[in-house]
Amino acid sequence: TSVRGMQTVTLIPGDGIGPEISTAVMKIFEAAKAPIQWEERNVTAIQGPGGKWMIPPDAKESMDKNKIGLKGPLKTPIAAGHPSMNLLLRKTFDLYANVRPCVSIEGYQTPYTDVNLVTIRENTEGEYSGIEHVIVDGVVQSIKLITEQASQRIAEYAFEYARNNKRASVTAVHKANIMRMSDGLFLRKCREAAEKHKDVKFTEMYLDTVCLNMVQDPTQFDVLVMPNLYGDILSDLCAGLIGGLGVTPSGNIGANGVAIFESVHGTAPDIAGKDMANPTALLLSAVMMLRHMGLHDYAKKIETACFDTIREKKVLTKDLGGNSKCSEFTGAICRRVQELE
Amino acid sequence: TSVRGMQTVTLIPGDGIGPEISTAVMKIFEAAKAPIQWEERNVTAIQGPGGKWMIPPDAKESMDKNKIGLKGPLKTPIAAGHPSMNLLLRKTFDLYANVRPCVSIEGYQTPYTDVNLVTIRENTEGEYSGIEHVIVDGVVQSIKLITEQASQRIAEYAFEYARNNKRASVTAVHKANIMRMSDGLFLRKCREAAEKHKDVKFTEMYLDTVCLNMVQDPTQFDVLVMPNLYGDILSDLCAGLIGGLGVTPSGNIGANGVAIFESVHGTAPDIAGKDMANPTALLLSAVMMLRHMGLHDYAKKIETACFDTIREKKVLTKDLGGNSKCSEFTGAICRRVQELE
Ligand SMILES: CC(C)[C@H](C(=O)O)[C@@H](O)C(=O)O
Ligand SMILES: CC(C)[C@H](C(=O)O)[C@@H](O)C(=O)O
Repeated sequence: TSVRGMQTVTLIPGDGIGPEISTAVMKIFEAAKAPIQWEERNVTAIQGPGGKWMIPPDAKESMDKNKIGLKGPLKTPIAAGHPSMNLLLRKTFDLYANVRPCVSIEGYQTPYTDVNLVTIRENTEGEYSGIEHVIVDGVVQSIKLITEQASQRIAEYAFEYARNNKRASVTAVHKANIMRMSDGLFLRKCREAAEKHKDVKFTEMYLDTVCLNMVQDPTQFDVLVMPNLYGDILSDLCAGLIGGLGVTPSGNIGANGVAIFESVHGTAPDIAGKDMANPTALLLSAVMMLRHMGLHDYAKKIETACFDTIREKKVLTKDLGGNSKCSEFTGAICRRVQELE
Repeated sequence: TSVRGMQTVTLIPGDGIGPEISTAVMKIFEAAKAPIQWEERNVTAIQGPGGKWMIPPDAKESMDKNKIGLKGPLKTPIAAGHPSMNLLLRKTFDLYANVRPCVSIEGYQTPYTDVNLVTIRENTEGEYSGIEHVIVDGVVQSIKLITEQASQRIAEYAFEYARNNKRASVTAVHKANIMRMSDGLFLRKCREAAEKHKDVKFTEMYLDTVCLNMVQDPTQFDVLVMPNLYGDILSDLCAGLIGGLGVTPSGNIGANGVAIFESVHGTAPDIAGKDMANPTALLLSAVMMLRHMGLHDYAKKIETACFDTIREKKVLTKDLGGNSKCSEFTGAICRRVQELE
């Protein structure tokens, strides 16, 4: 079913507003004549042999074949013992780097301007190991697992990202003053990667100090690399600086080109199906995806159309300060895209 | 040596700029005729029997007797295996609650106004347990320890703090979606405390969501309670919102009235001894101390004098945007205090 020159991408529309914003992205890609065809797959966790949670085989097969996915929000399962679908996807495809560029959007006002940084989060271990024990009644331990291999891999990735994206510096974020062995190992691997990439400036900073400096002057940061939980926190903090999860793209990167790009906002069940959702985060994630695939011209065109539409302030969804429907906002971006041909 | 009606407080001037800002605080207290006499003690870690690190016996005895301490910055030891002095003090006196009020200072401009919140951090366990292991070469684990007892104690403290300080709500900050057992236990204890304090509103929020919401609109928060590491991060983030560690007070509270109040900025060795330091954080910590001791009128008077001086913008230290020396800024506050008699 592959059309000449087209690349197939697995599309996981997701729950709640997921299908609407996925439709919006598909329309904009069509208007841009982006050479992408979509293979839609639903993802809800199923239980395999031995009760093990897994993603549906047809979704797994699609990703295994296409290597690249775009994903809307998935609802958080409430059943006890049920894993987060987002985490299960990251794990299934060993998507070890979570990359979130945070760039101020012209015309969308926040207390900050000129934010232009990227958080790179180790995505597979650390505080997210899932290993916990009750030691005695009332005493619980959670294990933070840091390995040399995963630390080295993410540190290397951060420096290569910086080089490939013409970024000047990488900051390792840690608490090695407290977690001397685990964060110490992570930090050591960052230092080693820095030694190999002397063209990129390297600094190290405590997580608490990063948070403090971030809210005082985010423009001092460029690429930041850190263990899993710190990345969870910092990436949300930084998203807040530029307007929130509704406008922040995200990519989960694995080995050999495998990657899933996703909007990290919720499923917003209260507005689902009402044509009110804002597709920006998913669209900008899809733009990241195009760049990952080497389709830079299409990426630039769609990104420009999106930012122009926001800057113009004429057709905006409610959360962006406007009165328009999702379909109207989408239409406005499509027209822009066509003007840019 | 105790003068009638005077209470004795252990003063740990600390390193770097510590002695200068301690002198500033003492002068201002004298101008305010605050009924405090100071017992000065140096704190550098010493090694006891079996190589165990401890604080000097005369400092320990002084604290054991006076129960209340005021402390400047202590330099971070570089020797391997040497503990952080701040952590050692918290541990020695079982100071289980770290309390940091963050209130916007009129006239000191930041991207935010009307910040008025308090972070309450569990100060004894969690990610700061210090338990770490190498499992096999290249695989390290750090243990986060959460106990029912410490969680209950800090949760209770937060609600009592809210009630005593006429604050409307407590938010428990957690990642119980990831660390289900450990943060789950912490959260459960917060919920139980909430049940007992129905006059205070209770909400729960993921740490990442708190960070995002915090930079978008800090005015939505009131009292926040959380495990150790999250408190380390959030308290610095919040300090950033109101102008940084140079203006943010902090208190470490234990059982039976024992407490150490401290400025949490660094020792600033580059400006030490040059009469350039800003004593505000230590002074406001001393104001917290006065309130803790029930000396509300003195607290109010000194706080007002400090804020008035900052608002007036005539005599300010460099970091506050002025040109004055530490002694001049101190003198200005002393004059204000006397005018307020
Ligand atoms: C949904 C949740 C499990 C996830 C996380 O904690 O990593 C989310 O906050 C994120 O950042 O993608
Ligand atoms: C000095 C350091 C050990 C300490 C911490 O990490 O708790 C500091 O950041 C703080 O917040 O008081």
